[in-house]
Amino acid sequence: MIQRELHDRMANAVRGLAIDGVEAAKSGHPGMPLGMADVATVLFTRFLKYDASHPKWSDRDRFVLSAGHGSMLLYSLLYLLGVPGMSLEDLKHFRQLGYKTPGHPENFHTAGVETTTGPLGQGLATSVGMAMAERMLQAEFGRKIVDHHTYVLASDGDLMEGVSQEAIALAGHYKLSKMIVLWDDNGISIDGPLTLSDSVDQVKRFQACGWRAERVDGLDPEAIAAAIERAQKSSKPTLIACKTIIGYGAPKKQGTSKAHGEPLGPEEAAAAKAKLGIAGGPFEVPAEVLKAWRDIGTRGVAEREAWEGRFAGLSDRKQAEFTRRVSGQRPPKLAKAIAAHKKALAAAPVTVATRKASELTLDAIVEVMPELVLGSADLTPSNNTKAKGLVEITPKTFKGRYIHWGIREFGMAAAMNGIYLHGGYVPAGGTFLVFTDYARPAMRLAALMGTAPVYVMTHDSIGLGEDGPTHQPVEHLAALRAMPNMHVFRPCDAIETAECWQLALERTNGPTVLALTRQNLPQLRDDSPTNLSAQGAYELAPAVGGEARVTLFASGSEVEVAWNARKMLNERGVPTRLVSVPSLDVFLGQPDEVRARVIGNAPVKVAVEAAVRFGWDAVIGPDGGFVGMASFGASGPIKELYRHFGITPEAVVETAIKRHNG
Amino acid sequence: MIQRELHDRMANAVRGLAIDGVEAAKSGHPGMPLGMADVATVLFTRFLKYDASHPKWSDRDRFVLSAGHGSMLLYSLLYLLGVPGMSLEDLKHFRQLGYKTPGHPENFHTAGVETTTGPLGQGLATSVGMAMAERMLQAEFGRKIVDHHTYVLASDGDLMEGVSQEAIALAGHYKLSKMIVLWDDNGISIDGPLTLSDSVDQVKRFQACGWRAERVDGLDPEAIAAAIERAQKSSKPTLIACKTIIGYGAPKKQGTSKAHGEPLGPEEAAAAKAKLGIAGGPFEVPAEVLKAWRDIGTRGVAEREAWEGRFAGLSDRKQAEFTRRVSGQRPPKLAKAIAAHKKALAAAPVTVATRKASELTLDAIVEVMPELVLGSADLTPSNNTKAKGLVEITPKTFKGRYIHWGIREFGMAAAMNGIYLHGGYVPAGGTFLVFTDYARPAMRLAALMGTAPVYVMTHDSIGLGEDGPTHQPVEHLAALRAMPNMHVFRPCDAIETAECWQLALERTNGPTVLALTRQNLPQLRDDSPTNLSAQGAYELAPAVGGEARVTLFASGSEVEVAWNARKMLNERGVPTRLVSVPSLDVFLGQPDEVRARVIGNAPVKVAVEAAVRFGWDAVIGPDGGFVGMASFGASGPIKELYRHFGITPEAVVETAIKRHNG
Repeated sequence: MIQRELHDRMANAVRGLAIDGVEAAKSGHPGMPLGMADVATVLFTRFLKYDASHPKWSDRDRFVLSAGHGSMLLYSLLYLLGVPGMSLEDLKHFRQLGYKTPGHPENFHTAGVETTTGPLGQGLATSVGMAMAERMLQAEFGRKIVDHHTYVLASDGDLMEGVSQEAIALAGHYKLSKMIVLWDDNGISIDGPLTLSDSVDQVKRFQACGWRAERVDGLDPEAIAAAIERAQKSSKPTLIACKTIIGYGAPKKQGTSKAHGEPLGPEEAAAAKAKLGIAGGPFEVPAEVLKAWRDIGTRGVAEREAWEGRFAGLSDRKQAEFTRRVSGQRPPKLAKAIAAHKKALAAAPVTVATRKASELTLDAIVEVMPELVLGSADLTPSNNTKAKGLVEITPKTFKGRYIHWGIREFGMAAAMNGIYLHGGYVPAGGTFLVFTDYARPAMRLAALMGTAPVYVMTHDSIGLGEDGPTHQPVEHLAALRAMPNMHVFRPCDAIETAECWQLALERTNGPTVLALTRQNLPQLRDDSPTNLSAQGAYELAPAVGGEARVTLFASGSEVEVAWNARKMLNERGVPTRLVSVPSLDVFLGQPDEVRARVIGNAPVKVAVEAAVRFGWDAVIGPDGGFVGMASFGASGPIKELYRHFGITPEAVVETAIKRHNG
Repeated sequence: MIQRELHDRMANAVRGLAIDGVEAAKSGHPGMPLGMADVATVLFTRFLKYDASHPKWSDRDRFVLSAGHGSMLLYSLLYLLGVPGMSLEDLKHFRQLGYKTPGHPENFHTAGVETTTGPLGQGLATSVGMAMAERMLQAEFGRKIVDHHTYVLASDGDLMEGVSQEAIALAGHYKLSKMIVLWDDNGISIDGPLTLSDSVDQVKRFQACGWRAERVDGLDPEAIAAAIERAQKSSKPTLIACKTIIGYGAPKKQGTSKAHGEPLGPEEAAAAKAKLGIAGGPFEVPAEVLKAWRDIGTRGVAEREAWEGRFAGLSDRKQAEFTRRVSGQRPPKLAKAIAAHKKALAAAPVTVATRKASELTLDAIVEVMPELVLGSADLTPSNNTKAKGLVEITPKTFKGRYIHWGIREFGMAAAMNGIYLHGGYVPAGGTFLVFTDYARPAMRLAALMGTAPVYVMTHDSIGLGEDGPTHQPVEHLAALRAMPNMHVFRPCDAIETAECWQLALERTNGPTVLALTRQNLPQLRDDSPTNLSAQGAYELAPAVGGEARVTLFASGSEVEVAWNARKMLNERGVPTRLVSVPSLDVFLGQPDEVRARVIGNAPVKVAVEAAVRFGWDAVIGPDGGFVGMASFGASGPIKELYRHFGITPEAVVETAIKRHNG
């Protein structure tokens, strides 16, 4: 076959499978695969560095389907390339339980999927992190070992979402020239023509953000190929606006929103296949076309083997370190460094804000954990994220471990996912706890995917004081604790902070929030041979003078409040114990017997936290006492606020006594 | 005084008060007020249509300080203009409890503040809604009654936040030419020079988004004035990039991040005042300068009076309607329309998805509530938000009640705040419940401010089926319920849906989420003379055959599950009642006796909801049974998912029996 004919048949194989998959599922999105099949085919057949038999090879090009609803495009490609685990049965069971073909691509479920997409804008923003990680890892291990592109297929929706701005501003600033975005410029969204809601000149916008950008005919393979070649030579990231037709080939529906998110229907599907010249029954790919695709799937074998040869040329130490890093193993010296730090703190207690305690912990561990990359969304002096000796990356050099993310919380969190997924790094980024609201969609994807970044969230309550209710989280702890697989730690002093950092960094299957104070806290904890925070809660101080009548539960800065209340209660003859709860969600996930033991049998239970009660009833019960917030905060000095909102040892005592006597 | 001298003294009065306020508070942000005092002074003295004695006059120009951290700029202006309620004492007690000068501007706390700002990007995005509302209200009531500008003072951070992209794309698309953004282009952020993290050419970017944009010297009053004049003549919204120096006047700190967010310190403050030629002690404003400002404060009296004359020329009916609308009173016929709709449903029950039931309700009320403006973030056919007869607004005509927001959930929610704050409209906007994560920061501001938009959040659980876990909310109900002043309703059938809409629309002090299903639900409710959903929970079906041994609690689509389980339990001789919980958060806010009565005394309590347990323990207690989700969802057909995750009548029965017998 001449090249164009082969291209057409290969692209149409993708189209045919996408049509059939959506028809079989009776739901799904045929429009994008039909429109972008040419672009994807050009990219995969001529450019993508990829060995289908090793979809986790560290130096593969990354391909991210940001427009995750077009998942049948990706599944068809994975099958055609021969990626292990993606069978024709999976395609036939698109969007069915128990198959590798969920409605939107899930990297934790399907080999060959680089990241989970669907929530628009995030594939693009995650890719920025992958492209950053590539530059950083190359700076560490050399171009012979790390040198790949990051390709993104994006939709109109990806570019309309605000996070796209944060992402492209970052990519443009850091000159991530090996990031190439192929935009499905089809002019259609669900409500109808894009002109209903949008007039942005995306090419100009990307150029304004430091990108190379050009328009091509997305149905012309040579034009696409030429554009990708130009992009590869650019010193800037590139946007290729691929003019396409949504649902290309479907005679009645193409070019309309009807082609976007529902099956074509048997008649239109048949007509589309006829028009495209796709013969055969459902899911049939002509043998010679399948072979051509499978050849593409093995095209990268030689490149991978050459890479392995170069890798073998590294020193044993460097090989081991690279392997450890990209496989996500944590450094063996981490636990020791934390233990030594705890011991030092116990020997010389400090009264510091937990954000400062966090910095002290980081100072103690950054050397033994070279993959830990820190940063802040423009709150470095407030988040205390810049540990000693950390050098920042710049557009000129990626030999660094500190990232100035700018005022871009969502973009930061999404890129942190990309950095983690790329392999080689564990990212930790800071902002104020209240702004987890801005970053939340990416934090959710982290929890879903099981990436393990650390969110360093300071200014964690009304304790931040004068900035007022816009900056004071009251519901955020609850909102984050409600998220599956998200761990939320709120340490009460410097030693707990060290323990929580250890748990966050040793975690390899999900993300962690560290909620940290702006205000100073006394050191209440002694050293301990084990990590007491690991179960989420533990008895910090026993009852005095008899069996406990009252148990106080508190987290973070309110452990001090409860500590003082316990003292007063014990002195008043009401035996009271104190349970520190650095992580309510981790604690609620413990086995029944652990929870029962820590909660204990005291008839009165009171929880203290400068946040809403929501969620605490799982520990204290509906009849338990709660001293915390029932509204938004206010602007004022910290001590006045705590008094104003009644979060004081006296209020805790009163609450406990009332229940004790009532 | 010649004009320039007067300008300088007036601008320096702002600067002096800002310096003194921050010094007195020992915290705050002097940098922006010092840099932007000239811009603000030009705007207020020469352009702003404003009568300080009537800060709520509906046709005033809106001035939004998007860079809310620069609040001392705004407070100083309000004091200088003579806005009632802003005293020198307030300025002297900047950031103190009990004064009108919180750390960030709070519109619900301080007269003359148009919207609450601080979380960056949102002032800008909220302003887009104000400018839209102006155009819409003008289309309804005429240019003589509605004709004002919306001015925004924005910082670098406002433009870096992703939501800025959604906002400016909307403003550019809808050609909101009376929106003028004054950007404090000072090149400094908290981490240091902006070049650490940003390279965007903002002027080009805004132009790409359909804006007029130009650069001026932000310290040159005549240049600023000329630019504002040009902006007022444009047919597009305008960005004026005002080149300024952060902390202008502070000899050692100006032009550095040290001037941004902390007091200058006594020495530097004195040096700054000396350099700027500000004489007198702290908070002293020369009498002639204060008089000049107060004259500006009354400059708009004539304009307002002329407006009142024009308004008096309207028909009585139109006057009354306008007054009702801008004062936020709800239409008298709303309750009757809902009652009639409920009655009709009871007479002819429907089995529909609650998203469809929502559409049916809207069809029944849109005529009697002309201020209800609907829209969707590009999910119109899925959210069922386009009720019958609604005409969409377009860049050419704002005579409409439907808004295509594009794929911009956050921008939509922020603009909805602006529409509501402007007065004249109650906005309701749709997306999928899972994407409340994207809109959350603006939803929080709505809850804090007490604006009352309605979020039409469909596809509210794993019941959406094949789209999979990226689109299936499991923690969102909990996360939203945790937010103070946010009402979250999840109706179980068409009648409850009507009741929940009524509650949402009659609410005037806070926002409401309606969580609605994609899947069909049977109609379980009869008509009722009162709104049973108003208390958040009520007994839907009693126990049979004796005093209740089991109480089932359920919301939304799981009421059907519990309904069937109750039947099975009653048949098995276990008297079981069913409580429908359309709003857990509203219910938890009821008086103790209401809660106790509805919860009842049955020894076994089981809650059923296709979401996480988090929060339900407040009703069922730690020992209660829960049938719901403990993880993220999965992609598959709805029935298989409910079986897979064990949310079935059988599972409810088993959970209840186990507790009953155990």
